[in-house]
Amino acid sequence: MENSIKERVRHADLQNRVVSRQIAASWIEDGMTLGLSGFTRAGDAKAVPLALVERAKKENLKVNVYTGASLGSDVDRLMAEAGIVNKRLPFQADSVMRKKINEGDMYFVDQHLSHTAEYLRNDALEAVDVAIVEAVSITEDGFIIPTTSVGNSSIFVEKAKTVIVELNEAQPLALEGMHDIYELGKQGERNPIPLQHVDDRIGTQGIPVDLDKVKGIVLTNQQDSPSTIVPPDEETATMADHLIQFLRKENKEGRLPKNLAPLQSGIGSVANAVLHGLLESEFTDLEVYSEVLQDAVFDLLDAGKVRFASGCSITLSETKLEGLLSDLDRYKDRLVLRPQEFSNHPEIIRRLGLIAINTALEFDIYGNINSTHVSGTKMMNGIGGSGDFARNSKLSIFVTKSIAKNGNISSVVPFVSHVDHTEHDVDVIVTEQGYADLRGLAPIERPPVIIKNCAHPMYREQLLNYFEEACKRGGQTPHVLEKAFSWHTNFANNGTMLEKTPQYSG
Amino acid sequence: MENSIKERVRHADLQNRVVSRQIAASWIEDGMTLGLSGFTRAGDAKAVPLALVERAKKENLKVNVYTGASLGSDVDRLMAEAGIVNKRLPFQADSVMRKKINEGDMYFVDQHLSHTAEYLRNDALEAVDVAIVEAVSITEDGFIIPTTSVGNSSIFVEKAKTVIVELNEAQPLALEGMHDIYELGKQGERNPIPLQHVDDRIGTQGIPVDLDKVKGIVLTNQQDSPSTIVPPDEETATMADHLIQFLRKENKEGRLPKNLAPLQSGIGSVANAVLHGLLESEFTDLEVYSEVLQDAVFDLLDAGKVRFASGCSITLSETKLEGLLSDLDRYKDRLVLRPQEFSNHPEIIRRLGLIAINTALEFDIYGNINSTHVSGTKMMNGIGGSGDFARNSKLSIFVTKSIAKNGNISSVVPFVSHVDHTEHDVDVIVTEQGYADLRGLAPIERPPVIIKNCAHPMYREQLLNYFEEACKRGGQTPHVLEKAFSWHTNFANNGTMLEKTPQYSG
Repeated sequence: MENSIKERVRHADLQNRVVSRQIAASWIEDGMTLGLSGFTRAGDAKAVPLALVERAKKENLKVNVYTGASLGSDVDRLMAEAGIVNKRLPFQADSVMRKKINEGDMYFVDQHLSHTAEYLRNDALEAVDVAIVEAVSITEDGFIIPTTSVGNSSIFVEKAKTVIVELNEAQPLALEGMHDIYELGKQGERNPIPLQHVDDRIGTQGIPVDLDKVKGIVLTNQQDSPSTIVPPDEETATMADHLIQFLRKENKEGRLPKNLAPLQSGIGSVANAVLHGLLESEFTDLEVYSEVLQDAVFDLLDAGKVRFASGCSITLSETKLEGLLSDLDRYKDRLVLRPQEFSNHPEIIRRLGLIAINTALEFDIYGNINSTHVSGTKMMNGIGGSGDFARNSKLSIFVTKSIAKNGNISSVVPFVSHVDHTEHDVDVIVTEQGYADLRGLAPIERPPVIIKNCAHPMYREQLLNYFEEACKRGGQTPHVLEKAFSWHTNFANNGTMLEKTPQYSG
Repeated sequence: MENSIKERVRHADLQNRVVSRQIAASWIEDGMTLGLSGFTRAGDAKAVPLALVERAKKENLKVNVYTGASLGSDVDRLMAEAGIVNKRLPFQADSVMRKKINEGDMYFVDQHLSHTAEYLRNDALEAVDVAIVEAVSITEDGFIIPTTSVGNSSIFVEKAKTVIVELNEAQPLALEGMHDIYELGKQGERNPIPLQHVDDRIGTQGIPVDLDKVKGIVLTNQQDSPSTIVPPDEETATMADHLIQFLRKENKEGRLPKNLAPLQSGIGSVANAVLHGLLESEFTDLEVYSEVLQDAVFDLLDAGKVRFASGCSITLSETKLEGLLSDLDRYKDRLVLRPQEFSNHPEIIRRLGLIAINTALEFDIYGNINSTHVSGTKMMNGIGGSGDFARNSKLSIFVTKSIAKNGNISSVVPFVSHVDHTEHDVDVIVTEQGYADLRGLAPIERPPVIIKNCAHPMYREQLLNYFEEACKRGGQTPHVLEKAFSWHTNFANNGTMLEKTPQYSG
């Protein structure tokens, strides 16, 4: 056995369990449920799922696939193309898989990211047969040290009948010590979660595992896929400015201190860009309590703006990832990765009083948010953690550009075509046009503010006309139900939400 | 001073602050914000608000009114009729006020009942000028002992500039010791809530108050209004049977023990009736962790089925209330009343793993719930605590009858006309037709189960036709957007959701 393996598999009983990815994949049976490590392209199981895809070329095979969130390394794409996925949860972000989901070729269960572990613990989902988790190492006392994400790995390992570890030598051993794993125990028998500060450590550095369940260890050597986020542009910079203006007002009026409150920022380019805007602000000594830590968090750490960041995964652009992995010690006392159940736990989010910044696909004049369904029917990625954070944060902020498709789509509509977050969970909406502070406003007070501050000028009159017509019918939340989705059907039929000829065309 | 006053106002400094209701009302200025005790017709401030209504006959006066939930004693009705309410939150259930809200004559902010206290603590709502809280007594050390509800009284007292106490001699002194008041402190600085069992007591028996703020004490002698719930009928009994069948299956399959899990039951006749059904079941040694405790909880306590009940208010029928108040000692070690922030706190709900039973107005074929808006526009009462519980419980159950208005309304529709709870927060739906267990089902798997098990037979074919047409268009959540609300517009235009002539007419 190579020394490097001994260095990484330090429990003697396990050193003889190294097998090929093909052998590991052969243990998976048709109809099984797999729990894969991986959260937003970070720390995903990279070898065994793809060996399974190879195997499926010669035999009929369907499995359920549970993960933390989206996978990188083409795993979701290749599994979808091979048609081996019966049911997938709780989040995905792959274009091929998305297409298969929307064509009805596979089932997708879109869950709050903090909920999956509870459903598994309560045996309320199809049980996990095989957990396949990427690791940096297995310690002397048999703990599995995850890599760049924790996601749902600890609950998968706990509940699975069989565990396969993918030992990834491309992930530096220096990641050891960066994780904090805590097990809640059953509802009704558990203690309060003893986490009161962003940098508290409450558990173990690795995932405890019944060693008898570890059937095999597969060696890999492959970096995570880089993030797909695009850099900030002029509009996202303007959105960041609006957000900072709002935060500045909150500070001035005594509702937020100079170091604000722990920040959460959703997955994706827009939320990343808005967070990035804090680099140029006067706010400092910031803390991050989020799920995925993207480029902006590391820019803020590097600039000394953020003092500590807690997440459940690290998803970076190629350059940023190389910088991090080659110099982990520089971040080690300022970073912690937790299971997604804790990064997203309502108990902690509410206790800490987060500022949550998440991305909307569209929102309506009353402040309801669609985060997931294009035109109300086609899944984009999933709700992710946005509901965990929006419901429980001190400030729930949603961001999006006011128009899309060269102005043929307005992100502000009369009635969202799918509701992920209700008006009760939305405090502030930000677009490149401005921000709308909805706190304490009755529904009927919101449309004038939202339309004036957030809608694109090309759609304002049309939105006001709808609201005016609706008000004639009365109600707490006035609507003209037969026209509520007319903007979406207009887009479907005529390629635009504009009632007149589009004035902006690409 | 009478002895009875000395017995109830035991802090010497306060004994000379007794004033008439008119004098107390005279301290309220136009434009102020009032925080009134009261939760679902229990423990409401009964005298000063009505003296204010009298005063308003002679002068123009508008105030904001915050409460725990709905008020009894005609307070909401008379304030609405007098037109003195500018903005009301977070819940109401009065027909006159409802009409004013829906006609746009007053603002109503519909909030999760656990959220109001946080908004106030964070100064994110118009600040409370005057708190008016009903009390049984004020203790030697200056704590205000609430009566039959706690609601938001403790946060109102903490944040208000002025406090008026309504000392209600119709509320027995024996209520002392039944309350458990705890203050969380600011977000970011607070401890975990040290509550791990339904019967844990974590705070003080009364509400702490800065005595300098107590400007006056008003004497009253008036019982709470009795609850308006109607007794169980044949259909609610059938719904209870379906629910018990489901619970029995969960028990048999090892997901629930014989004493189930702490139960929450929403406000209203249907949820009460369904809870009532447990009387005849084999489940025993039950616990209740709910907001309002209605008749069914006391029937279950009396029958020895429930061992302990925690709530934030007690709302009973006339006979039941008399029975309780005249024999409080019988219940004292089996009951506790907490602030609504704690009865409804996500941290506790998730820790304890509740079974939450709440009422829907309508639900759609994908499992989204409308709890509040008739035909999507007119407010009924408010979301109440249903969101606090549905999001965080171990089992989130919604109940409703499958049809209304003699069958002209189907409670199961293609697309709910207002979303209060998204598909992510709904585990099981129960109607008199049966139950649908949605856990682990992708959206597209749900309509067949919901339609078959929960929809009324007269609407099943029509629902299946919609789903079939929608499926031809594809998507994760197939819809025919231009027809999504056609059932509601059909009802508005033709008095029925049925596409053909109604076969059932009253």
